[in-house]
Order: sequence, then structure tokens, then C-alpha cells
Amino acid sequence: MVFSVADAVGLVAAVLTTASFWPQVRHTWRTRDVSGISLGMYCVLAAGIVCWLAYGILLRAVPVIAANVVTLVLVAVILVMKLRFQA
Amino acid sequence: MVFSVADAVGLVAAVLTTASFWPQVRHTWRTRDVSGISLGMYCVLAAGIVCWLAYGILLRAVPVIAANVVTLVLVAVILVMKLRFQA
Repeated sequence: MVFSVADAVGLVAAVLTTASFWPQVRHTWRTRDVSGISLGMYCVLAAGIVCWLAYGILLRAVPVIAANVVTLVLVAVILVMKLRFQA
Repeated sequence: MVFSVADAVGLVAAVLTTASFWPQVRHTWRTRDVSGISLGMYCVLAAGIVCWLAYGILLRAVPVIAANVVTLVLVAVILVMKLRFQA
């Protein structure tokens, strides 16, 4: 298996974009402050990640599946908190 | 050029995840309410999208470049509003 510079950059990209949602999960869990969070964003984003997951499954691309499962869980947690904590 | 089911699903995924940030841009622009938005999320996310952009450039993959340029602009706008509007 050849591991190229592009593969390395793509791996870093996937780790960063997946991990980025963790600070929002923590922030929202601590503050319960969801008024500034767009419900539309998290609905469309969750639908998009479900499609990326389907794409990964169709291509049997394990890294795509793994990254999108983790991202989907984090985004779903933010979406549920938005719905639960809003007045 | 063969256009597979996986290509179509990937295209829908890219359009949805890219477009998802637009409702957040609009919501934040209208409300100026940024206290619930995680600065850490948008910093890490922007860094990740820069890496996806570099990945697309390395592979000369025009759809990856195009989707990530649009996403980066939207995420950068949210990040700048977070910094400008917070007390």
C-alpha cells in the first residue's frame, strides 16, 4: 500500500473536520445556549452526512464510513440539544 | 464519462454539507446572537476545510476544490461574525 502526501493531507482533513464538532457539543452541553445555533444548518448537515455515509458504503470505503459515523453522532447530539434546550 | 449511483449520492452529499452552512450565516447575520456558537468548532473546522482544499488541489479534483472553496467562505463568514459580534 502506497501512502501519498495527498493521502496524509486527506487524513488530517478528515480528522479535523470530524473533531471540529466536539467543541460545539461540549459548549452547548455546558451552556444550554442554543438560540444562536441554526436548526436549518444542523438538519441539512445531518442529511448531507447521511449521504456521505451512503457514498462510503456504496464504495466500501472504510475511512469515509468511519469519519462520517463519528461526525453524524456529534452532529445528531448537537441537533437533539438544539431541540431539547430551546425555549 | 460514466456517472454511477455512488457519484450521484456523493454529489448530493457535497451539495448538502456545503449548503448547510448558509442557514447559519443568515441566522447569525440577522440575530447577532453568537454566544452559543463554539469558537473552537469554527477554528478547527476552517483548518480542516483548508486541508480538504489542499487535498483537492494535490489530486487536481475540481469538485473537491469547488465544494471546499464555497464551504470555506461560508465557515469563514461565521467565524468572523463570531469574533465581531461577541461581547
